[in-house]
Amino acid sequence: MIILVINCGSSSIKYQLFSMPEKKVLAKGLVERIGLDGPKLTHQVNLDKHKLDITASDHKQAMDVILKTLVDDKIGVIKNISDINAVGHRVVHGGEKYSESILIDDDVIHGIESFCDLAPLHNPPNLTGIRAAAAVMPKIPMVAVFDTAFHSTIPPHAFLYPIPYDLYKKYGIRKYGFHGTSHAYVTRRAAELLEKPINEINIITCHLGNGGSITAVKNGKSVDTSMGLTPLAGVMMGTRSGDVDPAIPFFLSGKEEFKDIAKIDTMLNKESGLLGISGLTSDMRDLEEAAEKDPNSRSKLALDMFAYRVQFFIGAYMAILPRVDAIVFTGGIGENGDIPRRDAIAPLANIGVKLHDERNKRMIRGKEGDIAAPDSAVRVLVIPTDEEGFIASETLRLVKE
Amino acid sequence: MIILVINCGSSSIKYQLFSMPEKKVLAKGLVERIGLDGPKLTHQVNLDKHKLDITASDHKQAMDVILKTLVDDKIGVIKNISDINAVGHRVVHGGEKYSESILIDDDVIHGIESFCDLAPLHNPPNLTGIRAAAAVMPKIPMVAVFDTAFHSTIPPHAFLYPIPYDLYKKYGIRKYGFHGTSHAYVTRRAAELLEKPINEINIITCHLGNGGSITAVKNGKSVDTSMGLTPLAGVMMGTRSGDVDPAIPFFLSGKEEFKDIAKIDTMLNKESGLLGISGLTSDMRDLEEAAEKDPNSRSKLALDMFAYRVQFFIGAYMAILPRVDAIVFTGGIGENGDIPRRDAIAPLANIGVKLHDERNKRMIRGKEGDIAAPDSAVRVLVIPTDEEGFIASETLRLVKE
Repeated sequence: MIILVINCGSSSIKYQLFSMPEKKVLAKGLVERIGLDGPKLTHQVNLDKHKLDITASDHKQAMDVILKTLVDDKIGVIKNISDINAVGHRVVHGGEKYSESILIDDDVIHGIESFCDLAPLHNPPNLTGIRAAAAVMPKIPMVAVFDTAFHSTIPPHAFLYPIPYDLYKKYGIRKYGFHGTSHAYVTRRAAELLEKPINEINIITCHLGNGGSITAVKNGKSVDTSMGLTPLAGVMMGTRSGDVDPAIPFFLSGKEEFKDIAKIDTMLNKESGLLGISGLTSDMRDLEEAAEKDPNSRSKLALDMFAYRVQFFIGAYMAILPRVDAIVFTGGIGENGDIPRRDAIAPLANIGVKLHDERNKRMIRGKEGDIAAPDSAVRVLVIPTDEEGFIASETLRLVKE
Repeated sequence: MIILVINCGSSSIKYQLFSMPEKKVLAKGLVERIGLDGPKLTHQVNLDKHKLDITASDHKQAMDVILKTLVDDKIGVIKNISDINAVGHRVVHGGEKYSESILIDDDVIHGIESFCDLAPLHNPPNLTGIRAAAAVMPKIPMVAVFDTAFHSTIPPHAFLYPIPYDLYKKYGIRKYGFHGTSHAYVTRRAAELLEKPINEINIITCHLGNGGSITAVKNGKSVDTSMGLTPLAGVMMGTRSGDVDPAIPFFLSGKEEFKDIAKIDTMLNKESGLLGISGLTSDMRDLEEAAEKDPNSRSKLALDMFAYRVQFFIGAYMAILPRVDAIVFTGGIGENGDIPRRDAIAPLANIGVKLHDERNKRMIRGKEGDIAAPDSAVRVLVIPTDEEGFIASETLRLVKE
């Protein structure tokens, strides 16, 4: 079965074509600058990358280009568009309604629409992607895989905020959590590596990339996560602050330069985190280089702050879980950042978590394995995430049912 | 030596008169409704309480009444005002300047003034109290004891927020922490109970009252605390939310009823926490009663959320500290709430913390002692706080130097 996975942003579409169930990637690519000057397609088959200037004034046109490329004589990988058996869409916000992936119909489209208020930057382009795909492949079944779904098992005492209860009922203000497909994928994979049934593993999954979130997983299910109503909450990120004193917006709104509170919102989302502290970059490797050159630099400070906040959440979740089998690192920084992994885990020796230094250094660039010391009370796993593969599996499961 | 301790609010003055160094309380009391209709004085000597209607149109007048009462023929406890050797003032915010208690002079008054921006509700009345006391006792040495001082040892990677570094330099936005006199007092007392030098104890101090904060203490010094720039941050409180997704204010500001963001500030500070979730009360005992009657009530939910957030911070701080000797409970809820103590500690059995149920139940109403099970890896202490006694000790120390 051939499954196309779509991740649609406001001016981009990422795609990946799978042969299932073997999860073989036939092709993948990205359309950028949709509706802007000079849209581009990057299309990759095996190791061959093709970069093309295209016409894509809207998402439907971009989707057309993708399909034409997939069936192209030279760089295509299938003969006919009808060879595609199903399409899986990444959808960021499923609210409280969608606790699992679901076959898309009109009701589901309305449902996703109803959560645009909660994810104004993400759900509208996700919907655009669904509509564009439906327009060019009207008869092919489509599945929505929600970033929030894995966290639907978080209990009320953890998902509710200590604010007036009416605000939850009225506006849906609660913790939803994000990166669900990644946390779900590495949970499934960790169960395999730990050789235990998934419903018997307790783990802490750290998805650390430009955005980052940490999840407490009990019996294979999310019971708490560091992101919240929005992806701003939790650990320190590339340009996002993560958790701060919630009074900071009110304090700043009294200052001339922040009278317009939209500026505070922008500051916390785009000018904070690693970038805000270092004043240099949100790129982990550049920071590591700068910190090595000058251990008193703000780059070093940014790295220390980053590791400290990861350590903080791991500690909190170790207290919440009745037992922890493994801590799992994934995402760009989680998979490649041996230094942040070391700095976050080293101080946890007192609660029985110990790294194997050499293994930690080696476990980068897509490698998967255990980086804990043999005598560590808790395994520490690096698992490269595979959100697209997870969406393809979910899509396969639903169209087969 | 006779020392008067003053804690001055916007319309109230709390006082306590000590004979030092034995820390004997000669008298204590409270003036309420200063500058309002019907100001009242409550004055207590031993167990005798006197409630009087007084004239107090400003703090200076209130201070006059307090001094007259202290030397009153019938209910007074000293002969002359000049018997008072020193005055200790509670001051909420000492910024980054005051890491210790200090003898008050004009410079210090200017210093406290300069932090009014950071503590607009607290430092101005604290200053009013200092000025009123200076006016009626011009020759008596006075000491300022800061609520933030104990936290001045928190390292930069913990006290800085992951926001643009310039905002720290420009506006002083960082974690300061509060309840410092309480955390400092129970740390000192815990060292005595644990029979260890204070600079060798690692503890987690939970000051839980109407406001609440949890502090990680390493070698007798604060290394992190749950409150931040303001007392809104951290654990769930009586009417304060504690930490929430920092994007919530922006989300709400888009709603008609919260267009004025001052309303969001008020909601998070005065209508949230235990009150906001239960919809009933911020009083722990009333909530416990309601929860017992109906285990599915929002009162029960509020209690569960409260305990969960305490557990969360204890876990995080156990990960941060290289070893934990004891968890200490203090403050109204910490000293009397055997149920919140049980609910917060019970799930920590997996990391070696276990309560002794009977001892926990008994350790209320001013009792001090260990409530951990004999085989607990970590002691759990209940220590009634004594902020006034701590201020008196600090004042004594400084006037003797």
